[in-house]
Amino acid sequence: MVNNNRSGYVPKPMETLKNSLEKNIMIDVKGNRMYSGILEGYDIYMNLVLKNATETINNENKGTFSMMLLRGDNIIFVSPPGGE
Amino acid sequence: MVNNNRSGYVPKPMETLKNSLEKNIMIDVKGNRMYSGILEGYDIYMNLVLKNATETINNENKGTFSMMLLRGDNIIFVSPPGGE
Amino acid sequence: MVNNNRSGYVPKPMETLKNSLEKNIMIDVKGNRMYSGILEGYDIYMNLVLKNATETINNENKGTFSMMLLRGDNIIFVSPPGGE
Amino acid sequence: MVNNNRSGYVPKPMETLKNSLEKNIMIDVKGNRMYSGILEGYDIYMNLVLKNATETINNENKGTFSMMLLRGDNIIFVSPPGGE
Amino acid sequence: MVNNNRSGYVPKPMETLKNSLEKNIMIDVKGNRMYSGILEGYDIYMNLVLKNATETINNENKGTFSMMLLRGDNIIFVSPPGGE
Amino acid sequence: MVNNNRSGYVPKPMETLKNSLEKNIMIDVKGNRMYSGILEGYDIYMNLVLKNATETINNENKGTFSMMLLRGDNIIFVSPPGGE
Amino acid sequence: MVNNNRSGYVPKPMETLKNSLEKNIMIDVKGNRMYSGILEGYDIYMNLVLKNATETINNENKGTFSMMLLRGDNIIFVSPPGGE
Repeated sequence: MVNNNRSGYVPKPMETLKNSLEKNIMIDVKGNRMYSGILEGYDIYMNLVLKNATETINNENKGTFSMMLLRGDNIIFVSPPGGE
Repeated sequence: MVNNNRSGYVPKPMETLKNSLEKNIMIDVKGNRMYSGILEGYDIYMNLVLKNATETINNENKGTFSMMLLRGDNIIFVSPPGGE
Repeated sequence: MVNNNRSGYVPKPMETLKNSLEKNIMIDVKGNRMYSGILEGYDIYMNLVLKNATETINNENKGTFSMMLLRGDNIIFVSPPGGE
Repeated sequence: MVNNNRSGYVPKPMETLKNSLEKNIMIDVKGNRMYSGILEGYDIYMNLVLKNATETINNENKGTFSMMLLRGDNIIFVSPPGGE
Repeated sequence: MVNNNRSGYVPKPMETLKNSLEKNIMIDVKGNRMYSGILEGYDIYMNLVLKNATETINNENKGTFSMMLLRGDNIIFVSPPGGE
Repeated sequence: MVNNNRSGYVPKPMETLKNSLEKNIMIDVKGNRMYSGILEGYDIYMNLVLKNATETINNENKGTFSMMLLRGDNIIFVSPPGGE
Repeated sequence: MVNNNRSGYVPKPMETLKNSLEKNIMIDVKGNRMYSGILEGYDIYMNLVLKNATETINNENKGTFSMMLLRGDNIIFVSPPGGE
């Protein structure tokens, strides 16, 4: 992420999502749920579209979904790829 | 889903629902509930209209509904048909 | 419900309620509550007006109400009459 | 309540409250609470003003209040007088 | 409270608060909390300013506050002075 | 706080916060949490900026923070200095 | 933070975040979660972008994330660097 905030520009969380498009992300969700997959889309509510998504509940793999629309409401954090 | 985001276009979660109309989807809902059925309609709150819907609570089949209006509030994720 | 979505029209959940007016519906509500009755009215919050409503909590019949205004907040799903 | 919905008119939940003004209503509230009293006023959030209100928690009478402003948030349903 | 609703006027909950200014009110709050004090101010979220407020939790007096700003979110009901 | 409500003026909760700027306040928060500190700023969501803040959970001192941004969502009440 | 409130200026919580950009902050989150990292961005919902973030649950270190988008909903408080 290009950091311009010295000149008054504040990077917004939505840019972090934009920069993660087509990349693998990890999402921590309420209820000990974890999802990972390739980010295909998002909106301002943090609703996310994931491709090849894996679901983990209580550290147990619960299956894979070729496509998933994850509701933003329940998200605790999103970990985008770090090397941006 | 056609992916145009290299040219600045960001696919939105609502498009994923639009592309799933008349197709069978699976919905994970709070309280260990799962619903599946044919998506007949939706709105921006993620309220969904399902046809021939099946309800599963704690992995137990609870019945079938020829028509169902599922409130978006309680949804964790929607799994649309993958082969889009 | 007439399905026109091939031509770009998306049926909305509110139409499902409109089509159910004066018909018997079933409503699944948080806290193991179930209500059924004749739909007399609704608004965009999914608040519903029911006539001759029956309340069931934990599968036990709790009584009948000649008129009921059910708050939309707590609804999980509405099952309108299927044969529409 | 006059039912005009055949001609496109949809009766709204707020009308049900309006028709109940100055009449005795019963309100089911989260946390096993029940209130009854004469409806003196309301707003679009379903906040209600009750006169001569009685509070019941877990089927136990908890007292009477000559005036009560009940917050709409916690309401499950309102039962207006049936014979309208 | 002057009741004019026969002529189409509907008394709003906020008027009940306005009529209670400078008077002692009781507030029932989630978590078995009760507050009483003299109402000094309020806003549309039902946030209340109380003077000489007393806090009771589980029927136990928890102390007195010469001034208190009580958040509206957690309120179940407000009992204004009845003789208005 | 100057009380002008006899002439139609209603003191708002936000004024109570404004009058508490640069003064020591106590904040009761959900989850048996208590915070105190000098109020440095606030917004309409009741998010508060505190200086020299102390945190107490279940009556146990949990530490001091030279600066703290406390989210308004979880606040039950704010006790401003009484002698205003 | 420059304090101008004697002249009517009220410092807002968002300024506290702005002043913390590129600095290490600590975030207390519901569910006994704690996060710390360098603040890279934020929005009005208090969604935060953190760099080199560490997660602690129940006082146990759960790992490090080179980048993290933390949802504002679940935040209890943010502790910005004190020496501002």
